Amino acid sequence: MTEFQKYILHEQVRPLFSEMRVGLEKESQRVTLAGDLAKTDHPAALGNRQYHASIQTDFSETQMELITPVASSEKEVMNYLAALHEVSLRSMNPEEMLWPMSMPPQLPEDEGAIQIAKLDRFEEVLYRRYLAKSYGKRKQMVSGIHYNFEFSREFMQKLFEHQPLFTTMDELRTAVYMTVTRNFLRYRWFLTYLFGASPVAEKGYFEEDEIVPSKPVRSIRNSEYGYRNHKGVTVSYASIEAYVAGIKRLVELGILSEEKEFYAPIRLRGGKKVADLKQMGVHYIEVRNLDIDPFAPYGIKEETVRFIQLFMMYLLWVGNEQIPTELLVETGEQLNNQVALEDPETITSMQKEGLRLIKEIRIMAQELNLSDADLTLISQAEEKLYQPEKTLSAQMIAYQKKGLSNRALGVQQGRAFKEKAYEKPYQLAGFKQMELSTQILLFDAMQKGLEVTVLDEQDQFIKLKQQQHVEYVKNANMTSQDTYITPLIMENKTVTKKILAAAGFQVPAGKEYQTVQAAEQAYDYFKAKGIVIKPKSTNYGIGISIFKEGVSKEDYLTGVRLALKEDQTILIEEYLTGTEYRFFVLDNQVKAILLRIPANVQGDGKHTIRELVIAKNQDSLRGTNHRAPLEKIELGEVEELMLKEQGYTWESIPKAKEIVYLRENSNISTGGDSLDVTDEFDDSYKQIAVEAVQVLGAKICGIDLIIPDKEIPATKNSEQYGIIEANFNPAMHMHVYPFAGQGRRLTKDVLHLLYPEIG
Amino acid sequence: MTEFQKYILHEQVRPLFSEMRVGLEKESQRVTLAGDLAKTDHPAALGNRQYHASIQTDFSETQMELITPVASSEKEVMNYLAALHEVSLRSMNPEEMLWPMSMPPQLPEDEGAIQIAKLDRFEEVLYRRYLAKSYGKRKQMVSGIHYNFEFSREFMQKLFEHQPLFTTMDELRTAVYMTVTRNFLRYRWFLTYLFGASPVAEKGYFEEDEIVPSKPVRSIRNSEYGYRNHKGVTVSYASIEAYVAGIKRLVELGILSEEKEFYAPIRLRGGKKVADLKQMGVHYIEVRNLDIDPFAPYGIKEETVRFIQLFMMYLLWVGNEQIPTELLVETGEQLNNQVALEDPETITSMQKEGLRLIKEIRIMAQELNLSDADLTLISQAEEKLYQPEKTLSAQMIAYQKKGLSNRALGVQQGRAFKEKAYEKPYQLAGFKQMELSTQILLFDAMQKGLEVTVLDEQDQFIKLKQQQHVEYVKNANMTSQDTYITPLIMENKTVTKKILAAAGFQVPAGKEYQTVQAAEQAYDYFKAKGIVIKPKSTNYGIGISIFKEGVSKEDYLTGVRLALKEDQTILIEEYLTGTEYRFFVLDNQVKAILLRIPANVQGDGKHTIRELVIAKNQDSLRGTNHRAPLEKIELGEVEELMLKEQGYTWESIPKAKEIVYLRENSNISTGGDSLDVTDEFDDSYKQIAVEAVQVLGAKICGIDLIIPDKEIPATKNSEQYGIIEANFNPAMHMHVYPFAGQGRRLTKDVLHLLYPEIG
Repeated sequence: MTEFQKYILHEQVRPLFSEMRVGLEKESQRVTLAGDLAKTDHPAALGNRQYHASIQTDFSETQMELITPVASSEKEVMNYLAALHEVSLRSMNPEEMLWPMSMPPQLPEDEGAIQIAKLDRFEEVLYRRYLAKSYGKRKQMVSGIHYNFEFSREFMQKLFEHQPLFTTMDELRTAVYMTVTRNFLRYRWFLTYLFGASPVAEKGYFEEDEIVPSKPVRSIRNSEYGYRNHKGVTVSYASIEAYVAGIKRLVELGILSEEKEFYAPIRLRGGKKVADLKQMGVHYIEVRNLDIDPFAPYGIKEETVRFIQLFMMYLLWVGNEQIPTELLVETGEQLNNQVALEDPETITSMQKEGLRLIKEIRIMAQELNLSDADLTLISQAEEKLYQPEKTLSAQMIAYQKKGLSNRALGVQQGRAFKEKAYEKPYQLAGFKQMELSTQILLFDAMQKGLEVTVLDEQDQFIKLKQQQHVEYVKNANMTSQDTYITPLIMENKTVTKKILAAAGFQVPAGKEYQTVQAAEQAYDYFKAKGIVIKPKSTNYGIGISIFKEGVSKEDYLTGVRLALKEDQTILIEEYLTGTEYRFFVLDNQVKAILLRIPANVQGDGKHTIRELVIAKNQDSLRGTNHRAPLEKIELGEVEELMLKEQGYTWESIPKAKEIVYLRENSNISTGGDSLDVTDEFDDSYKQIAVEAVQVLGAKICGIDLIIPDKEIPATKNSEQYGIIEANFNPAMHMHVYPFAGQGRRLTKDVLHLLYPEIG
Repeated sequence: MTEFQKYILHEQVRPLFSEMRVGLEKESQRVTLAGDLAKTDHPAALGNRQYHASIQTDFSETQMELITPVASSEKEVMNYLAALHEVSLRSMNPEEMLWPMSMPPQLPEDEGAIQIAKLDRFEEVLYRRYLAKSYGKRKQMVSGIHYNFEFSREFMQKLFEHQPLFTTMDELRTAVYMTVTRNFLRYRWFLTYLFGASPVAEKGYFEEDEIVPSKPVRSIRNSEYGYRNHKGVTVSYASIEAYVAGIKRLVELGILSEEKEFYAPIRLRGGKKVADLKQMGVHYIEVRNLDIDPFAPYGIKEETVRFIQLFMMYLLWVGNEQIPTELLVETGEQLNNQVALEDPETITSMQKEGLRLIKEIRIMAQELNLSDADLTLISQAEEKLYQPEKTLSAQMIAYQKKGLSNRALGVQQGRAFKEKAYEKPYQLAGFKQMELSTQILLFDAMQKGLEVTVLDEQDQFIKLKQQQHVEYVKNANMTSQDTYITPLIMENKTVTKKILAAAGFQVPAGKEYQTVQAAEQAYDYFKAKGIVIKPKSTNYGIGISIFKEGVSKEDYLTGVRLALKEDQTILIEEYLTGTEYRFFVLDNQVKAILLRIPANVQGDGKHTIRELVIAKNQDSLRGTNHRAPLEKIELGEVEELMLKEQGYTWESIPKAKEIVYLRENSNISTGGDSLDVTDEFDDSYKQIAVEAVQVLGAKICGIDLIIPDKEIPATKNSEQYGIIEANFNPAMHMHVYPFAGQGRRLTKDVLHLLYPEIG
């Protein structure tokens, strides 16, 4: 048992060991749909790179770098990476995509055509110019994935409490990560074998006079032909002090221009600068040797992220080998180069050591009582040691053998991934469990460079961060910009009405009753009117009776009794005639006006209603269970009854242009259409909506007006409108993606309200 | 059928006719408990009279005037008047009370000892000095009730729509109120008969040389001996123009010093000054002839308010008599004086006319389909015409005949009303249906001079108003001062914990699981700890298992399964040991700290537990159903079981000073005690509470800390505390009226937060 194992196996420590914190950085080249390097600038939609938390450019203007925050599971980090991909792809020129491989696409013959990233900070441009000069631009165009890794803080805390070797947490932490790092350097060939995915280079990558691999290999990038420091750039991993001093010396001697020019396959991290490591200890490590997986839409598979976690755990678990560090590192370097340059389709020369690693990892997994899924991952890696054709590099070569060139494979995969990102533009990969409005807001926030965190998925609770400015948002528009009392006012229809009426707005005249007798006395008053009888506080249509044009005493009393079953107090309200419009008001402006109309189809004189419904449901904006901005029209009983009342069946063929309604209610959730009519409205109505929302004190509000004739301008005191409801959490997706009319990106308005500083 | 009747009977008008708007102004003299005029100033607790919406002083410093807002029912106006009485009485010197009669208490022999109200505005003092000089101070000491009355706006609107006589609403309104006013002047003797309640004057009220009634009468105040203008001060009621011109002339001639010196029994109101009436029309009328009812705690009974409404309706219903206005008014004046000076115990000379009025009012009520309660009121008035001993003045005289002097009756009634106001100081008459915290807040708001409106009683929704500054408050501390997102953060325990933990605060370490299997894997980690297993989102103790010291695997899994029944995600949290304290934080300050301890009794070596419980429950702070700050301890099964576990029965006699607990949980709702311990805490804990609340962004928050030992100062990073919950609507009444320790008037802090301008 190694020194760490027995402490890790302590029952208070063990369950925490597999908890990890991981962040990914993934570079890729922006290319045309034909697979040529893009000539355009970094997408303007992504705002200023200088302040962007997660979408940057690395060496060249075309080399996008997607950076996730630290996550606590492989699922979480992949969700973020997926979302960053969709944001990037949808923010680009539609004729561009991301190159799905580590090795760059075919580069322009003229190296000058490779554009260094156009960054604001001049020192960053200078550094890139130095790199171009020192290594050549072509070498800098290689992309990869960096895997930032740490053990959970709770694990480190418990490990510290249950071990006798280290007296401070810093000492323990440094020891842990030094062990992992040394072992990583020794065994990294294993990752190169499993995940190496740069078998060939496109023409023009290597210089004419360069010595190059003569046939496909497992990983050019991880081999001596890859992108690495000049010969002789080495540091010691014997101790943190030696590591820090080594890098310092290289910089002082001018061998490296800056610390970050040190391209080790693994870096020790903690603090801002390498020198901070001595004071602060190592806090995490950065694994840099991962090639981009061309078969994974986001460059790496979730299982790979998890397997590397297991591998990192093992590197601690196995403890320190009793050989000098220098020898260990040198051996590792050699073995890695050797494996990297092997023929992808052959059994590796390191198979035996590989099988030992698998065996030991499996034992560790069993001792830790890890899940079946983890054990499966281990078995799959084992399989690859026996079946090299299952490795990524071999799969890539297999395509070539089938006649698909490396470039064609890149184009094929890149296009597929791009199309996937465009399929449902209202959804955001990685966050699809959330409500549409939240997905759209997250998209916009990420696009603008904010860091986003889901605090509670089910509850639609997110955190946004830009520099030091934190905002919490629930359900996409419940924010710090509104006061606590405002939604409470809107939640209570009586209070809302009282406040609006007191301020002179038109609301349905209504009266409250507590008894059937009291309501009965008022029958004469109501009998000839259109009225709504409803319980005062319930909200879901229960106990509501609507009589649009007069009511018999019997029906009236039945309505009263029904409502009184639901609440002690009932409201009898005037029924307003006219069309209902939703005004979305934000920061004293009407940002959108929506008309909702019941589920319907338009005839063409040829197709049956059934066919028309099926055709209408094809629209990609229509889905089910609120996963799309519009819902599919159902072929159900309610719809059938509605048709019957109009003298139709599913098989009737409506005349051309005839509109046939399938529902009475206009809810989007039952297949209704949403129509943006913002520009069709007179300012007078917008003014009323804005003022009413001001009276309620709201910054964000969806206010519903009944308007008999929108062509006649309204005044506050006129009967040209009536306010029937104010919503404190109005849906936004239906405005962003309406059935007809212009989409209104309200989520951007919400962001602007929260972050005026990002413009 | 009179001119108005047929339009009132229109089915759209009729149901609205009995809707009225009424406001009351009630004066009374502040006196000692012995019934002598108070020598103290207006209570300081009531703040500056100049800005007080509802508690003012009339002529003298001792003459309090309580002013209700306009209400839409007799119940509503009486609720407000009741509350104003309690606020006034509880704000006074405890040795004072309000004199319950119109005629003043015995006045000091030296008129100079009657202190003119000490108002800020010098012109108001000057006016009172003029009155003192012109009428004598003693006459100014009479008090009464003014009844401000209008028909509902909706009624006026519908009446206007369904009548052909008037072309503008102003014309109609003026005609309506002129009709009511003229008829009032003619028939007001009827109110003097029914509600006159000033049969005698105390010694010293009349001058020695004055001609005074030789025996008790119905109403000195309404008679020629009452407080009225000098002879010859009359105006015409023939038209609004004549009325306005008449008052203007009296002022111009210097017969009246100002318009408001015109002491008619009824005044036409609208606009700020009498002259405005011509432009604006009459908007309401002020009935000024009501004596204070010494048998009503608030000076007038609710039934009286309603009966006067019916009388006012009748005065319109009956229409204009075909005799000249001057004659009508003169007749009315004569009849009123005649009735006012009658022997209270005799049948009135006007009985016949009274019976005619009753008959006609009853017919009106029937035609309007008014309620049985209204018909009963009419019958009761009828009875008084036959049985004069039922009138107020006769009842007062009856006491004198039984040997209780008028002064003694005043002292008896005044004391009884005062004691009633002090009985449950945590409640507020008129608003007892609301939660205690809201009642206390309403009390403080009224005391400070704010106008309060209940927008929704069930929903604890109120509106506060001071000058133009409006605030809405729900549940006593949900206000505009907090942002919308803050309570949403607190509502979600996971989010709260994440935010607090990220900011470095101690929260119970916990993990989330979605499956039994996942939780099972972590069993080793939890088995030796104190843990709480709970559903992530439910809030009412359902599905929660607590294991204070370790747990068997079987119990652990049972707990996990129970919690998973309630939610998709469960939390397993560290169980913190220590004592739970509620910190109430407002505006970055800890305003109160409360310790709650389970229901208990303290032994005395003599009484049984049953007796001790019964004795403890006598405390007026204890009640049932949250109607008091503490709940009575139940003699129930749970308590019995708890006793049994300790080896006790209800009949056991605990030793002296022994504490016997009757409940495990410390909830106030199950009889627990609340102890204010604010001053026992170190600043270090207060600092932590304040900072944690800041991180959550809250202005008002009840934050619960578990503290193992409060004597040891804490730091943010120490384990000396753990934050277990933050409440966005923390109860306040338990701090205001704790079982032990100092009460903290948090409601005042809330008010100050909302209205810093009132100091």
